[in-house]
Amino acid sequence: MISLVPVEGIPEVAPGDELADLILATAQLQEYDVVVITQKVVSKAEGRLVDIDPKDLVARRQLVLSESVRVLRDRDGLIISETRHGFVCANAGVDLSNVADGQAALLPVDPDRSARHIRDALRARTGLELAVIITDTFGRAWRTGLTDVAIGCAGIAAVVDLRGTRDTAGRELAVTEVCVVDEMAAAAELAKGKASGVPVVVVRGVERSWFRESSVRAEVVRPHNQDLFR
Amino acid sequence: MISLVPVEGIPEVAPGDELADLILATAQLQEYDVVVITQKVVSKAEGRLVDIDPKDLVARRQLVLSESVRVLRDRDGLIISETRHGFVCANAGVDLSNVADGQAALLPVDPDRSARHIRDALRARTGLELAVIITDTFGRAWRTGLTDVAIGCAGIAAVVDLRGTRDTAGRELAVTEVCVVDEMAAAAELAKGKASGVPVVVVRGVERSWFRESSVRAEVVRPHNQDLFR
Repeated sequence: MISLVPVEGIPEVAPGDELADLILATAQLQEYDVVVITQKVVSKAEGRLVDIDPKDLVARRQLVLSESVRVLRDRDGLIISETRHGFVCANAGVDLSNVADGQAALLPVDPDRSARHIRDALRARTGLELAVIITDTFGRAWRTGLTDVAIGCAGIAAVVDLRGTRDTAGRELAVTEVCVVDEMAAAAELAKGKASGVPVVVVRGVERSWFRESSVRAEVVRPHNQDLFR
Repeated sequence: MISLVPVEGIPEVAPGDELADLILATAQLQEYDVVVITQKVVSKAEGRLVDIDPKDLVARRQLVLSESVRVLRDRDGLIISETRHGFVCANAGVDLSNVADGQAALLPVDPDRSARHIRDALRARTGLELAVIITDTFGRAWRTGLTDVAIGCAGIAAVVDLRGTRDTAGRELAVTEVCVVDEMAAAAELAKGKASGVPVVVVRGVERSWFRESSVRAEVVRPHNQDLFR
């Protein structure tokens, strides 16, 4: 059984805060917990905030373009672009919700590095084997609605390669590379709610063989030459 | 807290089987459980199986095309197409794994109807308020790895519209339509594993306000005129 445990009581995060300390002040972590953290609080702790007049649509557009390396679609005020990290998402992850008025939060510069930093701090303080996933809320092609996905991870496989394992009839499975960090991100969101102000959820009971070094950038961002939809 | 509880001990499913009976023989369901069921066993129960020689690549291709209404990409033996349901996925959901040799499983004709049928049977036998989600494993544009998504649902909101609720600073959130059935599908997969033969997972502890009539077809399949990536 897997449990999705919201970590309640984390205070408003400010630049310079050490997220590991804020998490450990309220969460009772256990061996092999996966700590899933909303990008917004990571960006705040890392000071990835810029001043912007939310009514200045030209400035907002410029900010989105400055966070993009390539624009895939640009229609009706919605820009779908590729970020420096290789993520394809709306408005390059620039977000004006859940930040102070007159500010926008940008994605962390290197979310895998952010995840490693938080994991190192959590492990150093607890002595536990733990993993960290940083999530953001992305739209998808072809399907309505947003889901949370992983933008950074540390200590947990991003993609689990089940190719070569046998199905129940004993035959080889052709393609079953499962993106378990995205599935954990989505799962955590169910326990978090959107406007409830719970930025951290613990996923407990995850398959232990999935705990290993990895990164979203290396394992989840699809190389351009393998991508049919750029 | 949300729990993801695998339902173990469900026997091999054959055409004509009543899935609700097989589930109730092993699962202890509770009020407001969401029962997440792998497409494969639904297709088997509904007899959506066709004979095919797995080595006959021409026949396999014909089968995929016969299940498609439109081909988006066709490269290196991989067809990305749109199914009659409006799903964009690899090989139109035609699957040769976890079925008998010489057979392929097709997607249910109407997975929302399949979900309603199973939910009706579960509710009639237990008197409990329950929801059902039917899942399949799809790839994504831009991101490596597969995740489970909902292809049918009954009794649970597919997309929860949090637009208009306030963020923690009291400002209106612009776009937060969350596809909670896809998030539950992904969550369930974590508890299921791919080759472990567990086709059903119960998601317990879901927000009660999400229980309502809905369908994947009406709420999740993105209308063509709103789709930037067809």
